Parts: sequence; C-alpha cells; structure tokens
Amino acid sequence: MSESDSAAARAIELPFPYLLFLGDVEDKGHAKTAFGLRDWVPEKCVAELALPAAQVSTGLPAMRPAEAKAHGARSLVIGVAASGGAIKPGWMPSLIEALEAGLDLVSGMHSRMADIPLLVETAQRLGRKLIDIRVPPANLPVGTGLKRSGRRLLTVGTDCALGKKYTALALARGIAARGVACDFRATGQTGIMIAGGGMPMDAVVADFEAGAAEVLSPAAADDHWDVIEGQGLLFHPSFAAVSLGLLHGSQPDVIVVCHEPGRHRMLGSEDFATPSIEEAIELNLRLGSRTNPTIRCGGVSLNTSELSADEAEAMIAAESKRLGLPVADPVRGGAAFERLVDCCLS
Amino acid sequence: MSESDSAAARAIELPFPYLLFLGDVEDKGHAKTAFGLRDWVPEKCVAELALPAAQVSTGLPAMRPAEAKAHGARSLVIGVAASGGAIKPGWMPSLIEALEAGLDLVSGMHSRMADIPLLVETAQRLGRKLIDIRVPPANLPVGTGLKRSGRRLLTVGTDCALGKKYTALALARGIAARGVACDFRATGQTGIMIAGGGMPMDAVVADFEAGAAEVLSPAAADDHWDVIEGQGLLFHPSFAAVSLGLLHGSQPDVIVVCHEPGRHRMLGSEDFATPSIEEAIELNLRLGSRTNPTIRCGGVSLNTSELSADEAEAMIAAESKRLGLPVADPVRGGAAFERLVDCCLS
Repeated sequence: MSESDSAAARAIELPFPYLLFLGDVEDKGHAKTAFGLRDWVPEKCVAELALPAAQVSTGLPAMRPAEAKAHGARSLVIGVAASGGAIKPGWMPSLIEALEAGLDLVSGMHSRMADIPLLVETAQRLGRKLIDIRVPPANLPVGTGLKRSGRRLLTVGTDCALGKKYTALALARGIAARGVACDFRATGQTGIMIAGGGMPMDAVVADFEAGAAEVLSPAAADDHWDVIEGQGLLFHPSFAAVSLGLLHGSQPDVIVVCHEPGRHRMLGSEDFATPSIEEAIELNLRLGSRTNPTIRCGGVSLNTSELSADEAEAMIAAESKRLGLPVADPVRGGAAFERLVDCCLS
Repeated sequence: MSESDSAAARAIELPFPYLLFLGDVEDKGHAKTAFGLRDWVPEKCVAELALPAAQVSTGLPAMRPAEAKAHGARSLVIGVAASGGAIKPGWMPSLIEALEAGLDLVSGMHSRMADIPLLVETAQRLGRKLIDIRVPPANLPVGTGLKRSGRRLLTVGTDCALGKKYTALALARGIAARGVACDFRATGQTGIMIAGGGMPMDAVVADFEAGAAEVLSPAAADDHWDVIEGQGLLFHPSFAAVSLGLLHGSQPDVIVVCHEPGRHRMLGSEDFATPSIEEAIELNLRLGSRTNPTIRCGGVSLNTSELSADEAEAMIAAESKRLGLPVADPVRGGAAFERLVDCCLS
C-alpha cells in the first residue's frame, strides 16, 4: 500500500465565471455541459462562443474571448462533447484566441489538453492554465479515516445515473436557504464545472481514493455542511471501489439514498438487479459506520420523472409511509422536499 | 464513470529468469526483494550482481550481466530498496551494462525508470524494455462482473501485512502438488516479481479496479484454479476501495481469511480495531456474492509466528473447533494445512 508524498493536495479549483464554448455542435444533446452550467449556475456564465457551423445556442450573449474577458470571464469552458472524447482540430483557433485574450481553458474531454503541444506551448508562453478536470490533483494523500470537524451529507444510489448529482445540488440549495453554511462538493465532471471545483473521484488511483475524498471535504466549522455528490454504488460490479472509497473518505453524518421507481436492472449492467432502497440504506450505513459510527439515513430522493404529478405525489407518500423516512423528488420540490431537508439537518 | 478504450489489456509479464541486482546494499532488510526471490523462486534466479560496497549476498553465483545473459538470464531485477524509493546514481553503470548485455530491466521502486532519460534512451537504442512494476498496464477495461470459466481463490485479511501473499503462494503450491492446474496471481510488487507477472492493484485508477482484477484472472479451463493474492481489507479506512474492486473482479469461488492472533489494532491505523475472523468472513462473502453467488469460505490462515510450536498447534485446533472451519498456518504446514487445501478444492 502507498504512502503519501505530500499532505498539501487540494481539490481542483476552476477560475470562473466562464465563457461557454460550443464549437460546431449540431444538437443540444452534445452540449449538455453548456446547458447544465447555464441552468444551474447562470451567475458563473458570462457568454457563449460558437463556430459558424454550430446549430445550438444557450441563449447567453455571444462574445469573442476578448469581449468576454472584458465582461469578467476568467476561463473558457469546453461545453460540448465530440464523439471519441477528442478536442477537434477546428476548435483550436478559438482555444488559442481565448488563451491570447487572457482566459484559462477548462476541459472535461477524455483527451487531455496537456497532450496537445500547441496548447501547452501557447499557455506556457502566456502564463495561462490548461485545466483537464478528468486529471486528479497531484500528491493526493492516503486516507486516515480520522474524524474531521464539520458535518457531511453524501448522496448514494440504487444505480448509476438516477439523480445523485441533482439531489446533492438541490439539498445544498435547500440547506443554504435555511441560512446554514453549506458547500456542494462535486465528484464528477459536470458537477465540478457547476461547483467551480471538486475531485474527479473515478480518475483517482485506488490507493488514494479515500484520501481524495478526505481532501474534497476538509475539516470545517462544527455547524458547516458539505453536501457531497455520490458516485456509482456499493453494489456495482464495475465501480463499487469508487463508491466505497468515497463513502469512507467522506465519513458522512447523513446519507440520502437516490432511487428511480421501476428501475429493476442496472444501467449498462443488465445482468445485475438493482438493490432495493432498504438494502442500499443498510449497506451504506454498515460500511460507512467504519469512519463515522453515528452515520444515519436522512431520507430518500425519488426520481419520478417518468410519472405524472398525481402518480408521483401518491408514490412519494406511499414510500415515505412504507420506509418511515422523508421521501421527496427534488425536481418537484414542495413540502416533501422541505421535510427531507429538515430530517437531514436534525 | 469511464468506458473502456480497449479490451486488449493484459497483466504485466516479466522476462525471467532474473539477474538479481543488489547495488551497494548494506543490510539484508533493504534487500528483501532479492532474498524473497531467492527463497520462493530459485528456479527464476540465475545469479546476483553487487557493487563493491555491498555488504550482503544471496549466495547465488556472482555474474556480470553478459555472463548472466549467457547463462539464460533475460532481465536484471533491482532487488534492493533505497531510502526514498529512488534509483541511486551509483547504480546507473550497472543498469546500462545490463541493457547493453541484452537484459531488460525490472524495477519495483517508487521512482520510475521511465522518468530517467539515460535509461530510456539506452533502452530504446538497444530495443530493450524498462518494466516499472508499479505502473499498471495501459488500456485496462471497466469490469463487467460477468461470470468467467475457471475457478478462483482469493486470500483476504483482518488487517494488512499478516500473510495474504504468503498464504496465496502456499495454497497455490499445495493445490499444484495435488496435480491440479493452478496459477498464483500476484497483486503487489513482491508477488509480481515472484510470479513473473501480475497486476499492481493499488496503482490502478479506481474506475478500472474491478476490470484490472478481471484481466489478472482471465477465463480458464473449468478445472483450473487461480489463487489470487489479496490486498488490504474491506474494513480498512484508507484502502478498502482496492479490496472491494479486487473482490468483485476476482469473483472468487473460495476465500481464505488470513489473521494474526493478538493483532487487535490495525497496522498504521491504530485508531481502528481489526475485525474478527467471523466479521471478515461474513462481509467478504456478502459483498463477494455480487459477482459470484456461490462464494464460500474455505478456511482460515493463522499467522502464528509469535507463538511456540505447542502454542500454535493448540490455537489452530481451538480456532478450527470454534469456527467449524479448517485452520492452518501455512508456514508450519502439516496435516492442518492439507485439510485447508482439501476444503478449498472440495
């Protein structure tokens, strides 16, 4: 097992506000990052920049990099996905223009900007940063498991891709709305851009997984809450290592279990059944108690996007009664969601 | 979560037999790798090479690289540890001489040979390989969790550093001695050198942890056994991610729990109690059943190195009775160990 090279590692920090780069994107599906940023953090988005071939707009003002810089932008975010995860050659003039205008570049693409010599040379010459958010910080420490001050909430799931990020964002807003000091702690690419920082937990070397989670949610004031975006699930045959390291390192006081009714087989792993809500609660509490013996479940977040409003309301009420816990769909909000926030903070 | 770039990844393979390089080592403690190789796989060791300042010998014949090559050696293994994990400048002439003699270089040091330009240039010029065994293979796939043919045994533990590697090696020998086809699958640096290959599980990116374990123990004949070296433990506040990915990806039919009597606090994490043998059995079977529903415990390996022969015998008998399972110390062997092998194969 590894030893730490340094205790000085910090989570990724992004220079915002952003200029959203759309490239030559032809449909909204490939510009999910740009639209997610516009919807979740409009205050972090100054403008958009698209090539003439682009078919999509976020509705933000169109600006060249120099104009965006004059309006306060500090970085250009590549807000589109290209097939294969590569940075397209046709995007390069815009990226160089952004560096020359004094903006840093932020990318969540699979291919790394650090591997493109022209970008590296230009950024070095101009003193600008290339931030590949799939690359974890250097010198991550091994986890200690020791209790830190501050309070923590982790969203966990019964499958991938059913609302752990959305739930964490909504809970962080709900907690902050009560006047309680609170930070959303992002663990995936989109979440990191929304938060303006975070830790790409799936890209961390396994020996440092718990340590990376400890860095992400450092010691804080006793009444401060970190709301941490979950990744994967403990039951996942491919990604459970990520989930367990995140659980141990986050040492949450409270978990909220995210579930989509009717999802019986695991997304992308259809040979495996999804666990029940009760199984997910029980296993997360059991394993999480290793680093936080007082861990408890604050409630359940139901993704009812496939249901009508009436169906959703009925299911939320029935599940809450069945489980004896607050249940809410954060997208629908309402009194049920307020009860969920109450229970998390209680 | 990540997607695979390629399904062609393979475990590390080392070119053996070896020339063991001792450098200028002054004590046996810093030459553990060389002595481990001599003891475990003398058939893989041709000779040793030491600098004049060295104070230690493995007892193998001393040869220059060219002579070792003529005697069949295919690689020079750095069999010593230097403080800080670095390759010392004084070693370089010997390493260059080995490359020029036609040997590849194998290192388990923290500092990478791939980061030393003179070694890289010399190896490229001569068509030789530099194998840093702390560096995982490229293009590891995401795990699938799907059942593979062949049978698998994983050693697991109630703490780190109490005999998981030794137990796996001994069980692999015991199984092979019955005429059953069997491979030892190494997951740590020393084990990889002993086996002549393997997977450095602690250095794999977390998203690929289970996939790396799947690559390490590929589909095999129905009556073939892979005996897989465990890493860490599911209860470890720092390293549990490694252990869970290895458990899921190995999909073991049988686990053997390794334990040291009297070890009540975790090594290097003294704030945490070690789990009991029963807790380790139960949690490994529960989580392992996700990828192998027929997983079972084959027995317990006790590290009785702190006990006298009589004390060890009494404790082994008492623990076997208490747990209702075969219990043995593989270092002591004997009938108890044969019963453990029997139960694993049954």
